[in-house]
Amino acid sequence: MKVIDKINQKVAAGQHFFSFEFFPPKTEEGVDALWERMERMVAHGPIFCDITWGAGGSTANATLDLAGKMQNMVNIETMMHLTCTNMPAESLDTALTKLRESGLENILALRGDPPKGHDRFVTVEGGFSCALDLVKYIRKTHGDYFGICVAGYPEAHPETLTDDQAANEKAYTDSLSYLKAKVDAGGQLIITQLFYDCDRFLKFVKDCRAVDIQCPILPGIMPIMTYGGFKRMTGFCKVKVPQEINDTVEANKDNEEAIKAYGVDLGAKMCKYLLANGTPGLHMYSLNMEKSALAILERVGFIDNSKVPRPMPWGFVPMHSCGLRRGEAVRPVFWSNRPKSYVWRTKDSQAFPTSRWEGAMARLTFSDDPTFMQIHSYSEGRRAKAQEVWGAPTTVADVQRVFSQFYKNETGMLPWSEFSTQFGIKNGTALSSLEAAQGAVLALVDASLLPINVLLRKFAVPSETPVLGWGPPGGQVYQKGHVEFFASPEALQTLLPKLQSQPSLTYMATNASGSDINTNLQDGAVNAVSWGTFPGKEVVQATVEDLASFKVWAKEAFELWRSDWASCYESGSKSSELLESLCSSWYLVSVTDNQYTKGDFLPSVLA
Amino acid sequence: MKVIDKINQKVAAGQHFFSFEFFPPKTEEGVDALWERMERMVAHGPIFCDITWGAGGSTANATLDLAGKMQNMVNIETMMHLTCTNMPAESLDTALTKLRESGLENILALRGDPPKGHDRFVTVEGGFSCALDLVKYIRKTHGDYFGICVAGYPEAHPETLTDDQAANEKAYTDSLSYLKAKVDAGGQLIITQLFYDCDRFLKFVKDCRAVDIQCPILPGIMPIMTYGGFKRMTGFCKVKVPQEINDTVEANKDNEEAIKAYGVDLGAKMCKYLLANGTPGLHMYSLNMEKSALAILERVGFIDNSKVPRPMPWGFVPMHSCGLRRGEAVRPVFWSNRPKSYVWRTKDSQAFPTSRWEGAMARLTFSDDPTFMQIHSYSEGRRAKAQEVWGAPTTVADVQRVFSQFYKNETGMLPWSEFSTQFGIKNGTALSSLEAAQGAVLALVDASLLPINVLLRKFAVPSETPVLGWGPPGGQVYQKGHVEFFASPEALQTLLPKLQSQPSLTYMATNASGSDINTNLQDGAVNAVSWGTFPGKEVVQATVEDLASFKVWAKEAFELWRSDWASCYESGSKSSELLESLCSSWYLVSVTDNQYTKGDFLPSVLA
Repeated sequence: MKVIDKINQKVAAGQHFFSFEFFPPKTEEGVDALWERMERMVAHGPIFCDITWGAGGSTANATLDLAGKMQNMVNIETMMHLTCTNMPAESLDTALTKLRESGLENILALRGDPPKGHDRFVTVEGGFSCALDLVKYIRKTHGDYFGICVAGYPEAHPETLTDDQAANEKAYTDSLSYLKAKVDAGGQLIITQLFYDCDRFLKFVKDCRAVDIQCPILPGIMPIMTYGGFKRMTGFCKVKVPQEINDTVEANKDNEEAIKAYGVDLGAKMCKYLLANGTPGLHMYSLNMEKSALAILERVGFIDNSKVPRPMPWGFVPMHSCGLRRGEAVRPVFWSNRPKSYVWRTKDSQAFPTSRWEGAMARLTFSDDPTFMQIHSYSEGRRAKAQEVWGAPTTVADVQRVFSQFYKNETGMLPWSEFSTQFGIKNGTALSSLEAAQGAVLALVDASLLPINVLLRKFAVPSETPVLGWGPPGGQVYQKGHVEFFASPEALQTLLPKLQSQPSLTYMATNASGSDINTNLQDGAVNAVSWGTFPGKEVVQATVEDLASFKVWAKEAFELWRSDWASCYESGSKSSELLESLCSSWYLVSVTDNQYTKGDFLPSVLA
Repeated sequence: MKVIDKINQKVAAGQHFFSFEFFPPKTEEGVDALWERMERMVAHGPIFCDITWGAGGSTANATLDLAGKMQNMVNIETMMHLTCTNMPAESLDTALTKLRESGLENILALRGDPPKGHDRFVTVEGGFSCALDLVKYIRKTHGDYFGICVAGYPEAHPETLTDDQAANEKAYTDSLSYLKAKVDAGGQLIITQLFYDCDRFLKFVKDCRAVDIQCPILPGIMPIMTYGGFKRMTGFCKVKVPQEINDTVEANKDNEEAIKAYGVDLGAKMCKYLLANGTPGLHMYSLNMEKSALAILERVGFIDNSKVPRPMPWGFVPMHSCGLRRGEAVRPVFWSNRPKSYVWRTKDSQAFPTSRWEGAMARLTFSDDPTFMQIHSYSEGRRAKAQEVWGAPTTVADVQRVFSQFYKNETGMLPWSEFSTQFGIKNGTALSSLEAAQGAVLALVDASLLPINVLLRKFAVPSETPVLGWGPPGGQVYQKGHVEFFASPEALQTLLPKLQSQPSLTYMATNASGSDINTNLQDGAVNAVSWGTFPGKEVVQATVEDLASFKVWAKEAFELWRSDWASCYESGSKSSELLESLCSSWYLVSVTDNQYTKGDFLPSVLA
């Protein structure tokens, strides 16, 4: 949906709104951290989020990828910045096509910063030299498909500002005419440069209206978070800072806490003033940080922490209005450690099951596109790190060591986990039981049963319990003990009779080709793995397992041996061959203990 | 569906089948017992059941009512016997119309026994004198609507049998011609008279085929259960008993157990022999008893007790193939003590929810027809008993006494319960906790909060547990404590603040008109009341509560004050006026404790 349409709806309903801006992190770790932060921030219901443009080459691709994932994985209406810097028309075409393929409908069109190593903007061959031409080009090539947003400068564009007051006045008037041209060419929404003088912004809006710019104008709010950052940004953007603000920041120069607190105070005061004076909504420059932005919005009254939905066992359920996944309330347990992969792979589905899983596999669309896995897990940087922490295994014992180290929390990397630890918050395992679980899991590894997913039982755990709990307060959550591991054909033969002799266990085992499947789960049957009961609600069945989803997952799980691990080594190398052979000959085994009211079951799998 | 179509399907699939015959009990208690027995028997999957005809007047109506309830309440494909005895054409018309209204499509057309006080059959004025004419009449008036079954006599009709062997041979030949005529007139299925000589039956089938009777012929199997019964039936039906059988029965004449055991042995032997010699299925004359018939079927291999679905908390889920309710897996908790009323009132629904209740009220059709309530609860006999055990209350204290006596298990009657005790098996309350619950319930009565439904909490009770458990083995069942009671407006005012101050309670209260509703349940919200978890299954949410179903139930609950209690007394009498005034001024209150993991909550309602 176009952001402008969502804004018009809000305005028509007399409701204020807010949005967050993010930028593409430079490291993989930064990207991982951003996803978690974004998920928490989006839970508060921004009307949209935007992501700035990492101009040129791989950064451009990374931005397109981030934007696609924001739209389809975080499920927030996403606006991607697009600039002219280093972007010849064909690069723009590629980017626009990719945006459409990812289902994005919103662009913030900018000229962009000067290319690296240049002081002033340089027009690339075959490219454009200003945002106006970019807006025109998008409209020419894609008609009305995209919602287009353009930048507004309450104090004129910084490049046009000098020490000459009269020249600045003229620059300001010119910038209004230029803005009018951008809107006339197809811009439907204006977001402004950051500012600290609210009256300056309000005058800007008035001046825009005077030259017949009628679209919504959103103030760009940049919370003051650090002294250095504030100085850098206001200097770079040539933003006039009111004396009082400057004085306060200077007075607290060496007190980080005080600067941050003042930033929140000031931000809240500014936002309240703007909203009280006709501003329809706020655009928060988050700088990828959540605390200041959320604190300001809370002060303004946008955020009521008591009303933020508590996460499901797999993380937050997106609550914003455009989210197809809003009612989603059940998932296969297999993606517990790869929730992003699950969301990504099911992004083309039209509807998601709300509590029962039965029949869901027929309605869900699982993408076969391995792009997500590769981009997420195996950038060159990550690959180098993987080689470092996993070494070059040449024996099964070497592989066992990699698993042991992961479960000892020594490496933080395993191909089958998006998380750096199996026993973290995401998996909802009691911290107190971590040690016991760790022992049992390491015993599995020693027995050459290589675990990729371990969920400990939960029995009527109050939903408010930190780490373990989920869902609204006053409830009780449950989880059957569940473990999934790779096993050699020989190990499976030894194991199967043990599994078959325990009717309280549900097990499934398959090889990579799917030619040999062993299970005691009835055809079409679905087994509940976790659920919760809450006052005034039906039973929420959060995770399940069934043969159909296990088969889909098994393909992914086996593929990870190859694409995410074996590919770290040269093709034909000993390591590569070992991992390939494990992938093609070993079994993936899933075991769930239906006797969750009693003690943990891991030892019973081994016994 | 027509029984003959179901039989043809089975025959085409090469599957044997069985059916049960019942007769209309003479007493209300007998009817109640039959329903429970029938539910258990139907759980084994008979292809259909039939009910014999209680000829003439009120018995006829009772049979029509029973047949309708078998079809719509027990949800078994039902065949009703219809005879010519005392049935002029207009009475037949009425009966046939009523059958169609109840959705029945199957009739067993018979001449019937001589009317009471007669030795020989007497044709009533305007009626018919033989089954053939009845078959013709049904076809003439209702075309192909009904599936028609007729009776076959492997030894000729008893009335035609004499001591003259040659005459008997002729009678047998004549009876075959007559049977051919019945089939030609529209009979599609033959069920035989009881017999104990299997070869006689097989010869009868052969003889039928010889005169071109091609429809399925089902042997009527009457298990020997008592010496007296066996003698009476074989004498009355003039059935030839092989010498060996007669000798064995005579030898065990005084040993009831031995007779029964022999009856099962013999029945199983007969049935196996018949099936092995081309008989497609077995028709069991149950005589309204379950043990012998089920034991025989088990020996024959029709019944595997380990595969019979365990009941849901509200009783069995019908498993036979025609049952629309087969997948039904959730109901509002309010009908806990009136499950038959619930099934009856929802009989016109096209589909039933399988686990989630949300939105179900929009899809379910609740009949407003109070017929069920009246016929079930208030025959004249029951009314007399009610007056006896309830007396003629003239004060609220008198009414309280009626409730106390019910909960002390002294009376076994309360308008809001189909059961004779609140704490019986049906409600799944732990027998050991009965005493504690009784005390708390009596305290409610003393506080003038008149309970009509009390469910104690269940917390991870193993599903196999007698009384408390339900569903397949290896599971755990749960129930939130739940109580429903009538309260005076004053009592409600005192109570409401207490309810409001306990966020772990879900409450709803309404008056008879529905003009004043108090609740803390969100609009459209559904609260789980009982559920179970089972190996290899999704969470089964058996009972729920929501405002929409509470409103439907409240109408029924308030109506019962009038139709089932006040109507026991003369209109305008003190008792009638008291009950009417309670009905129109008091409130129905439902309270559920969402903290089911902790101790029982009844005292907290009072506190």
